[in-house]
Amino acid sequence: MTADDRSPVTVLGLGPMGQALAGAFLRNGHPTTVWNRTATKAEPLVAQGATRADTVADAVAASPLVITCVIDYDAVHAITEPVAGALKGRTLVNLTADTPERARRTAAWAAGHGIDYLDGAIMTPTPTIGGPAAVVLYSGPEGTYQAHRPALASLGGTAAHLGADPGRAAAHDVALLDLFWTSMSGVAHAFALASAENIAATDLAPFAKGIGALLPGIIDAFAQNIDDKDHPGDASTILSAVAGMEHIIHASQAAGIDTGVLSAATAVARRAIDAGHGTDGFSRLTEVLRTPAPAA
Amino acid sequence: MTADDRSPVTVLGLGPMGQALAGAFLRNGHPTTVWNRTATKAEPLVAQGATRADTVADAVAASPLVITCVIDYDAVHAITEPVAGALKGRTLVNLTADTPERARRTAAWAAGHGIDYLDGAIMTPTPTIGGPAAVVLYSGPEGTYQAHRPALASLGGTAAHLGADPGRAAAHDVALLDLFWTSMSGVAHAFALASAENIAATDLAPFAKGIGALLPGIIDAFAQNIDDKDHPGDASTILSAVAGMEHIIHASQAAGIDTGVLSAATAVARRAIDAGHGTDGFSRLTEVLRTPAPAA
Repeated sequence: MTADDRSPVTVLGLGPMGQALAGAFLRNGHPTTVWNRTATKAEPLVAQGATRADTVADAVAASPLVITCVIDYDAVHAITEPVAGALKGRTLVNLTADTPERARRTAAWAAGHGIDYLDGAIMTPTPTIGGPAAVVLYSGPEGTYQAHRPALASLGGTAAHLGADPGRAAAHDVALLDLFWTSMSGVAHAFALASAENIAATDLAPFAKGIGALLPGIIDAFAQNIDDKDHPGDASTILSAVAGMEHIIHASQAAGIDTGVLSAATAVARRAIDAGHGTDGFSRLTEVLRTPAPAA
Repeated sequence: MTADDRSPVTVLGLGPMGQALAGAFLRNGHPTTVWNRTATKAEPLVAQGATRADTVADAVAASPLVITCVIDYDAVHAITEPVAGALKGRTLVNLTADTPERARRTAAWAAGHGIDYLDGAIMTPTPTIGGPAAVVLYSGPEGTYQAHRPALASLGGTAAHLGADPGRAAAHDVALLDLFWTSMSGVAHAFALASAENIAATDLAPFAKGIGALLPGIIDAFAQNIDDKDHPGDASTILSAVAGMEHIIHASQAAGIDTGVLSAATAVARRAIDAGHGTDGFSRLTEVLRTPAPAA
């Protein structure tokens, strides 16, 4: 997992993900300069060979490739705008998560300051970084990506360049985070419901993992239905989904558990039924979600 | 996947799942009697060797083991109450999905009529039935389960007896369906968001499957946290989850996509933050979901 490239890299922002990124560059032999608002966060990386910069300007001056990974784009701008001059002619790779629209605006800002810019999205958790399971998506100019591809390979796993539109990585990011956090809400709720029935979480877990294992096949089938604009209900219908969701809501209410997420999910499915799609498959909801809800 | 048992089995209700169940019994050599309110649904099974009964009473009389799989427990009662006398001394295995409370009430009804009763839950989709991937959970008297275990083995895969409490299979069922349908809502929403950004569903699918592949590890970690009543936020906090969910909500609003599910999920996370748990891990939400929401 090592690249031949040994060019210097700067990492701005040393939260858990920033630390993981800097660690991966260090392990792959890149002279790595780090900066964080709270300087003590740099200490473990300095112990691994990183150089701690006292200021953002110093950090930027140290490397042709500058990586940012902070809480949101407000933080990106707060850190980078004062050093726009220093960034000119360098490449800024922003791995902070935010919306496609903000990615495009940040790219426009960078272009206006002569900064080469890639917007990226990290799709896998901190511990995967630098290893085979990491998935990092990039968008922005192809030439900029190719120039830094060897260094970025240090982050491991799968790196994909999604095209010149700087919002494309963020668009994938929000869609995939959408799936992730909605599913996580389901995980939390399922364990709450099991707990109310005195089922130990570790007893439910093997079955819950079995449910998770169904998703990949369903995702492929969904994707085909969506691209075909055809939503057959031969295996399972929206009507039967609503029947199932109502059982869960009733059981949750009986157990005194919040039903906000399920009620909202059921409301979408009911809109599909009201529009005459009850016997369609659940993938039809992707279209219903994109049509405005009627005024209540 | 064949059992030595060749005892007669009756299947009441021939929706897609009922048909799959009857087909599995037939393939394993069980004389199988079927009944459905709309009799034509029996035709494919009759072609495979099943006997179609004209009435529920005839169907029940044909076998010591009677399986029901219909839309809900109202339908179960509508079908079985008129033939309670005929069911006396036989075993009714109800694989219809509903709440734990209704499973317990149905078990009490059966006991009052001298009917041996198992409440079951089918955890995997129709095409899995009879094959290695099927998962079917049962609860009710151990002796009743053991007596019919060889015949029930025809349904394939994993069969688990969860104990004497007749509500226990349904309790697992609602918790697991909760995870399933909430995740499915996330799948539909993620594809809607991607579609608004002109990302083809089949282009997003490989990454979406990667997100799904993260769930098993997270489920195990969650379960341990929940049983330990300890929710460390060292890898990821509720605060950062809310930041991520807000990006998704903003991107969804910008694209004109319904945000009901995400808004409800965020509201739960905010309650956790308001209660001082912002730096805990997401598994903390299982406890927050079980505490009543403050009046708005």
